[in-house]
Amino acid sequence: VTGSTSEASSEFELIDLLRSRLGCDRPDVRVGIGDDAAVLAVPVGHELVVSTDTLIAGVHFPLTTRAEDIGWKSLAVNLSDMAAMGATPVWVLLALTMPSPDRAFVERFADGFGALAAQHRIALVGGDTTGGPLSIGLTVAGIVPAGRALLRSGARSGDAVFVTGTLGDAAAALRRLGMAARRESDVDIALRERLDRPMPRIAAGLVLREAASACIDVSDGLIADLGHVAVQSGVGIEIAASALPASAALLAVSDARERLMFQASGGDDYELAFTLAAAREQTILRDLASAGCGATRIGRVVEGQGVRLLDDDGCEIALDRRGWEHFA
Amino acid sequence: VTGSTSEASSEFELIDLLRSRLGCDRPDVRVGIGDDAAVLAVPVGHELVVSTDTLIAGVHFPLTTRAEDIGWKSLAVNLSDMAAMGATPVWVLLALTMPSPDRAFVERFADGFGALAAQHRIALVGGDTTGGPLSIGLTVAGIVPAGRALLRSGARSGDAVFVTGTLGDAAAALRRLGMAARRESDVDIALRERLDRPMPRIAAGLVLREAASACIDVSDGLIADLGHVAVQSGVGIEIAASALPASAALLAVSDARERLMFQASGGDDYELAFTLAAAREQTILRDLASAGCGATRIGRVVEGQGVRLLDDDGCEIALDRRGWEHFA
Repeated sequence: VTGSTSEASSEFELIDLLRSRLGCDRPDVRVGIGDDAAVLAVPVGHELVVSTDTLIAGVHFPLTTRAEDIGWKSLAVNLSDMAAMGATPVWVLLALTMPSPDRAFVERFADGFGALAAQHRIALVGGDTTGGPLSIGLTVAGIVPAGRALLRSGARSGDAVFVTGTLGDAAAALRRLGMAARRESDVDIALRERLDRPMPRIAAGLVLREAASACIDVSDGLIADLGHVAVQSGVGIEIAASALPASAALLAVSDARERLMFQASGGDDYELAFTLAAAREQTILRDLASAGCGATRIGRVVEGQGVRLLDDDGCEIALDRRGWEHFA
Repeated sequence: VTGSTSEASSEFELIDLLRSRLGCDRPDVRVGIGDDAAVLAVPVGHELVVSTDTLIAGVHFPLTTRAEDIGWKSLAVNLSDMAAMGATPVWVLLALTMPSPDRAFVERFADGFGALAAQHRIALVGGDTTGGPLSIGLTVAGIVPAGRALLRSGARSGDAVFVTGTLGDAAAALRRLGMAARRESDVDIALRERLDRPMPRIAAGLVLREAASACIDVSDGLIADLGHVAVQSGVGIEIAASALPASAALLAVSDARERLMFQASGGDDYELAFTLAAAREQTILRDLASAGCGATRIGRVVEGQGVRLLDDDGCEIALDRRGWEHFA
């Protein structure tokens, strides 16, 4: 029931491969992969921040995604949760399910995963491989000074709302995948890079930890994600549609209506949406810029509840149930 | 790509259900399910112990397993890793993949999972549900006084080898599942209980932390698992086949040859195999008994390498590649 010996040895070989490639040398890893569990040291005065996320082939990434990109994106999606908490990511555990023990796939997966892990000196401290349709389950752990984690619940009426980077590229890339085959233009390559290789906003999260009143990462779509901030903070949020930041690539491939759909409800960009007392705006935008991260003011926190997307006349733009907006 | 709004709300509903059922009230959970990540406090002077394990339907449990038992077993298998480290389990994160958002299944899963979690006051602090063939990915975290985790690497020549409880019941239950339909006898019910509801040896692990030189949980089969202890400790291990403990139920359904196969290579019993300086045997067996756990001396640590299963004449019993033994 736990697999024949030959399957088991393949599993051990793959875990050894992952350990040798991804188990970086951190002094806070007392025992890494290879015992019944890892033993880790959380520094005094800090709290542990943990989240788990599973990516399924064909659901969370296109079936045609390269193994290297699956590795990168799996880690990026999980690191984005650490960024949204203002945490410094340190350790990760990987549960890899694949149809057969495919060493070549695991090597390439480790290339992409390891490239991002190395940027943040994150150590793989647990691994499990099982047979089944391709899916990647990650649990990532980070640390934050005690009591300083950046939550969804602190937004207050009068705060300004911001988002890092630009929105909508990943959704546009995904939409264009479904279209008739075309030459790969620079624009499509740029959009696809956003879909396959999102860059978690770790440095921005550390800046925001000292200043933002609430923060969330944009994974399910800006309006849906800000909805969690509104509920957990007990406030309403108004977003100015025309303020939403777009990349040059997105501007090149979309009309205004389609662009807004991608930006407001596309998701998968892994930017940070955050709220801030308006008086702190200049300082924080400067600190974010120093951390290599642009941010745009897109709205404000109000009394009430829910998230409303507004046009330039202050009229609400409605979203229907499928997340697609129509102009009333 | 991240699911339609209707799927997403089902996911949120299921996570809310899991949180309300399994997110117990622990003071060390600063922020539980509901933000981008959980925030947890590791007590000063302690290290964090973490492991991850995925259970796939039809591989790690029979397809006919009841949802309640899947919930129990998923947690038990992961807690067993904590027991083997001498850790006190405190938090768990769940990645649940299922074909459709099935609330009734999740309710029953939570019944079984929650029954075991409540015994140890473990809090669910992270959850993720996705669509796909049924699988359960868990990451469990525990704590241990700094430097005191019980590892696989400390066995020394001259130590005695022990195992808690009895071996082979789960493998016998599984084998009998595959046979022609029969009336459910008390014996079959008892064996099936061992397969579906393994009892992680948490209390025994805490006793052994103070005394054992090495420890591992018996998940893949006694000889295979002791092989990891032998490699990581740089020793050989000799096991007396006739010393392996059997339950009354196993004795009732197996002949000597089949029984040894179940005990030596069956796995899935989640007992602890451990090594101990022989002089400490009496004290430790008494302390284990006080913790409600029997243990049996089954062999010894020797110089050399590998694990050898010996008959009463000291002759080796060979295992073939498929983990089934034959008498040479």
